Order: sequence, then C-alpha cells, then structure tokens
Amino acid sequence: MKQYTVLTLFPDMILQAFSHSILARAQKEGHIHIDAVDIRAFSKNKQKHIDDYPYGGGAGMVMQAQPIYDAYQSIPHEKKGRFIYLSPQGKTFTQKIAQELSKESNIVFLCGHYEGVDERVLEELCAEELSIGDFVLTGGEIAAIAVIDAVARLVPNVLGKEESFQEESFSYGLLEYPQYTRPPVFMGRAVPDVLLSGHHANIEKWRKEQSILRTKQKRPDLLK
Amino acid sequence: MKQYTVLTLFPDMILQAFSHSILARAQKEGHIHIDAVDIRAFSKNKQKHIDDYPYGGGAGMVMQAQPIYDAYQSIPHEKKGRFIYLSPQGKTFTQKIAQELSKESNIVFLCGHYEGVDERVLEELCAEELSIGDFVLTGGEIAAIAVIDAVARLVPNVLGKEESFQEESFSYGLLEYPQYTRPPVFMGRAVPDVLLSGHHANIEKWRKEQSILRTKQKRPDLLK
Repeated sequence: MKQYTVLTLFPDMILQAFSHSILARAQKEGHIHIDAVDIRAFSKNKQKHIDDYPYGGGAGMVMQAQPIYDAYQSIPHEKKGRFIYLSPQGKTFTQKIAQELSKESNIVFLCGHYEGVDERVLEELCAEELSIGDFVLTGGEIAAIAVIDAVARLVPNVLGKEESFQEESFSYGLLEYPQYTRPPVFMGRAVPDVLLSGHHANIEKWRKEQSILRTKQKRPDLLK
Repeated sequence: MKQYTVLTLFPDMILQAFSHSILARAQKEGHIHIDAVDIRAFSKNKQKHIDDYPYGGGAGMVMQAQPIYDAYQSIPHEKKGRFIYLSPQGKTFTQKIAQELSKESNIVFLCGHYEGVDERVLEELCAEELSIGDFVLTGGEIAAIAVIDAVARLVPNVLGKEESFQEESFSYGLLEYPQYTRPPVFMGRAVPDVLLSGHHANIEKWRKEQSILRTKQKRPDLLK
C-alpha cells in the first residue's frame, strides 16, 4: 500500500478530490491511502494565523515555518518519506517522474499559499520542489492532486483492466492516434474505412501513421 | 462576470474543487461562475453508458460522440464560447495562455476519460486541445480545475489585495527570490541580515541576485 500525506490549509479539498472514480476505489481496496493534515491546526496563536509579513517588505504574506514544521512532525514515523513542496519554482513534473514516484511507499506533499513559505522550513525538512507547469495557481492543492493522481494510477492494481492502457501518450514519445466508437456515422462524419476493415496489419499501420502525423502537427518538440 | 462550464462525468468533483478559498469567494461575489454538466445524463441507453469499444480494436473504452454533443448543446446560448478539450495531446498550458483565456467571457471545458473521446465530436464542435503537462491523469477533471484556477485568478477583482502579487514567477522570466517571515531565527537558521537592514536598495539588489541565481540553478531553460 502506498501512503500519500498532504500538508494543506484546505484538507477537505484534498479528500473530496479523491472521493470519486478510480482513486476512491483504489483507497477502498487498500492499494493507496491519502491523508490530509491541516496546517492551521498547528498555529500557536489564538487567531489561528499561519502567515505573516515578509522580512524585507513587499506585497503578500508568507506562510510561517513553525506550523508547517509541526504539521510535518505530527505525521507518524512510518508514514514519513519523500517530502515534496509544490511550487512554480520546482522541477517540472513529467510522466517519467510519475513513474519514479509510483515506486515510493510514502510521500508527503506541502501545499503553499500566499507569497510562498518561509525558506527555512524547506531547508530544514530537505524539501524537493516540484511544479506541474509554467502557470500560477491559487495554491499548491491542485498541483498536489494532479501529482497524486498521475502517480497513484501507476501503482499496481489501482487501474482496472479497462483503464490500464492509457500510457500511450508519452510512453513511446508519440501522441495517440484518433479514436472512434459506435455509431459508424455521426453528424455525417464516417469512421475511417480502415478501422472497419478487420485487417489488423492495416489498422496498426494507419494508427502508427496517425500518431506520427499528430505528433508532427501538435507537438513537434516530442519528435526531437 | 466570467462563465466557465465543465462537461464531465464527475460534476461533484468540479463543484467541490471550487467550494474553497479564493475561487469560492469569487463566485459568491459574482466575478466568476462555474457550472458542471453531467455528460452521463445525456446517455440514450438504459444503463446510462456513455462509452463503447474502439473501432479497429485495442484496449480501453472510448467516450461516445452523442452524449458529449448533447451535453454541449444543453448549455444556454449565452454561456457557450470557446470549447476546450483537456487532453495530454493538447498544446501545453502556460501562464501566457492563462492570461489570454482570462479575457474570455465564456469557456466550455470537456473532460475525457478512458481511452479518449470519439474524434468526430471534437471535429464537430471545433474543440481546441489543451494539456497541463506531459503526464497522464485518470481523467480531464483535474486538468480542467487547474486551468480554471489559473485563469480565474487573473480575472479582475478575483484576488484580494494580499493575494494579488503572486505573478512574479514567469512574469519576468525569472523564479522568485526566497521569502522569510517571523521569527528571525528558526531551528538555528537566521533570516539573511540584509532583509532586516531596512536598506531598500540593498534588499532589492539581493532579491534580484537570488532570483537570477535560483533560475540558473533550478530552471536554466527560462534564461534562454
């Protein structure tokens, strides 16, 4: 069983995101387990603040080191493991990193908000930084959800038989060929004849050509 | 007001994701509005299936054109607009695209599952394809949530004063400098002296240097 623990200001958001579909089933079946730890519960002031003004001035608020540190320390020893801070500054997350992370037994994720988090808690806890892309989100929660989803679906038995073959994009470095299902004609648009031919070698050839064509058109960078 | 409509098999997942924090407030205040349309409600069979086997064979199931087409047509005319299919095959989403999309009044998002969707409905509805990164998710919902979050926070008045200055990463093509807040010493780690000096020119110089240094270390590709 793989354990994912998320340090967050919005624990419900994390738990709700995994209460649907494939990853809800995977949790019920005991292949993965997802916990959310509320950073605010570790605030030491009455107002439950967890942020403060940045030293040196500037706009925005910075999340304080202590509540994050204490939230991390509250995790039982056997659930601690790699510690990942979701941040636009991090290494860009890819399918290759997803494959690597899917082998880890325990991962702890830290979701930032406001202007970021006090640098010292990242140093103290030896945080790795990971980004899901070159865009800015209101917080790290959505990034953590994306990473956990991409990682967990690679854990053995998480995907059912019907779902297990979605690896094609990126696995061969090519985009997937177009897909069609019933009916044979939709809004005057027919399924390509070759797919109805039953000629497996031709179908495979057509699909390969389409994959290359689409990759050239849409993502020429993948062909390099 | 900006309208975002999501065609999905998991409408609760979409609505719950935006029931927290900044974007929940932005909806209450009327700056944005997010709808989720359940594709399964447009199935025409008793079992409410919306997928079928792929023509030409192969693993996995393909989402059928008709329920998606009908779900799209159920959207009131004044809420229709750009139609975006979240797919690992799409153009890679970036902050620049977020800025562009934040100017649109209406955006409709389609979330795929299984092996993908019947190509013909994408052609018929002139779908643009967008990807949040080179990794595979269990479905398009998390990608749609990420795109809506990144786009909506750029809509005027969505961010409050304290939140409005998170643009720094990517805006200048440099990563952000490290941040610190109280206390001055945490676990034996002191805040850099310059930030406590009150000397604004020196603080700015130090932050600029740190931004360049971090970008060189973590994302040299951004400096090109």
